[in-house]
Amino acid sequence: MAGTDRNRELITGGPAIVLVEPQLGENIGMVARAMANFGLSNLRIVNPRDGWPNDKAVSAASRADHVIEGAVVFETLEQALEDLNFVYATTARPRDGHKPVVGPVEAGEALRGRENAGEKTGLLFGRERIGLRNWEVGLADAIVTFPVNPAYASLNIAQAVLLMSYEWMKSGLADPHQTAFARPEVTPAPKADLHGLFGQIERGLDARGYFRSETKRMKTVDNLRAVLTRPGFSTAEINLLRGLFASFEKFDRTRQPDEGDALRDHGETEE
Amino acid sequence: MAGTDRNRELITGGPAIVLVEPQLGENIGMVARAMANFGLSNLRIVNPRDGWPNDKAVSAASRADHVIEGAVVFETLEQALEDLNFVYATTARPRDGHKPVVGPVEAGEALRGRENAGEKTGLLFGRERIGLRNWEVGLADAIVTFPVNPAYASLNIAQAVLLMSYEWMKSGLADPHQTAFARPEVTPAPKADLHGLFGQIERGLDARGYFRSETKRMKTVDNLRAVLTRPGFSTAEINLLRGLFASFEKFDRTRQPDEGDALRDHGETEE
Repeated sequence: MAGTDRNRELITGGPAIVLVEPQLGENIGMVARAMANFGLSNLRIVNPRDGWPNDKAVSAASRADHVIEGAVVFETLEQALEDLNFVYATTARPRDGHKPVVGPVEAGEALRGRENAGEKTGLLFGRERIGLRNWEVGLADAIVTFPVNPAYASLNIAQAVLLMSYEWMKSGLADPHQTAFARPEVTPAPKADLHGLFGQIERGLDARGYFRSETKRMKTVDNLRAVLTRPGFSTAEINLLRGLFASFEKFDRTRQPDEGDALRDHGETEE
Repeated sequence: MAGTDRNRELITGGPAIVLVEPQLGENIGMVARAMANFGLSNLRIVNPRDGWPNDKAVSAASRADHVIEGAVVFETLEQALEDLNFVYATTARPRDGHKPVVGPVEAGEALRGRENAGEKTGLLFGRERIGLRNWEVGLADAIVTFPVNPAYASLNIAQAVLLMSYEWMKSGLADPHQTAFARPEVTPAPKADLHGLFGQIERGLDARGYFRSETKRMKTVDNLRAVLTRPGFSTAEINLLRGLFASFEKFDRTRQPDEGDALRDHGETEE
């Protein structure tokens, strides 16, 4: 299928492709190639097993050098998501929970609309064998799943990235006379803001012995994060919520705060 | 992305995937896997370079055994097409000539319509390096091409087969936007639940002198209620949020709650 025209300008940009703990360099290279085919160039890699840079990734990328060279490595998924406003997790099957589940076409269109509106977006892809953990899916705003044969569902990460990259490209080819994508009414905050809210609440709850045990803690934190992620809170909304929790945190019912304490303090974060 | 459910019936049938002189067994295996993911099972191979059967194809097929075992080898492309009613050639670019050129979505829908009408259909894919020769494209009824980045067009045959197999599967879904799974709707709670949350938070803030003055209070309460109303929280989500605020409210950072206090108490309302 070779047909590259080196006189044409390279299409770049688009949603970030976020690979969570990929194991094989070959797969990272194939992901880069899939992205380049359909005009994506922002690759983020969380904690790759074999380190970075990776020679096998380079050779499998088949000259998608701009993607490989531009790849950014993060130690944690939270860091990889910090500046993104809206994130899909890709999963082979819907998980329990309250996140919306969409197909690739709808996801491609939604990402295009958000990017056109100036949001930064991303797509999460899990490890080769075990995919994404529940708490990682919990950091996403919604889930995208593929209409695979239920009796044979074994898309690898490069294939999953290929399908989403293709749907991203297709979403940009729509008839310009077609209804323009409406700007989402509320722009979700960069994930760092949301994670700041998580941290504030979870520290407060920890200090109060809310979680009882470490196993209950994990499940409760998952639920809590799901509830706080689902609305797609804006930065202003998050700041207001942080102010509420800060007020509950800092003052007893009976104490009158010094003038100015309660509202000003909520802007300070400890992360 | 593993998610195979072995209790589900395997989807088979559909258009024949015709590989013309494929070189690498690995690619044939990856083609089989791509087909199986999206419910295709008829693989035809014209004059494979390394003969047939091919161990590398089997191992790369990742248990898509039914596709590999059912593959039929032909000496010539003409023979491979003999019983087919309608055939698309896949190419990286449109060729000179008078054949219709369509995209993958339209091709998937056309193939579905013809198969439903009892026709036998096929899709031709060329060699790894040089694709299909012009005379081979000439044996097809129409051309399907992919909306790739013109400056980086290097879909391999397994990727091209994956995209067409995916479009075939999609064409069989009632609504092309739908995926195999339904979208969970969050049912917003009855307003009484939401108002209970308002009351709990506002009383807590009042007790802490958060509002300063009655005029500031009204504006702040309006904002707060707007933020909490916008997500359309479900009853379960509201209960979780009430639990958080109750915990912040009732316990000092230093105090350990009695067993059972924090979580159970949030169900009690004071309204």
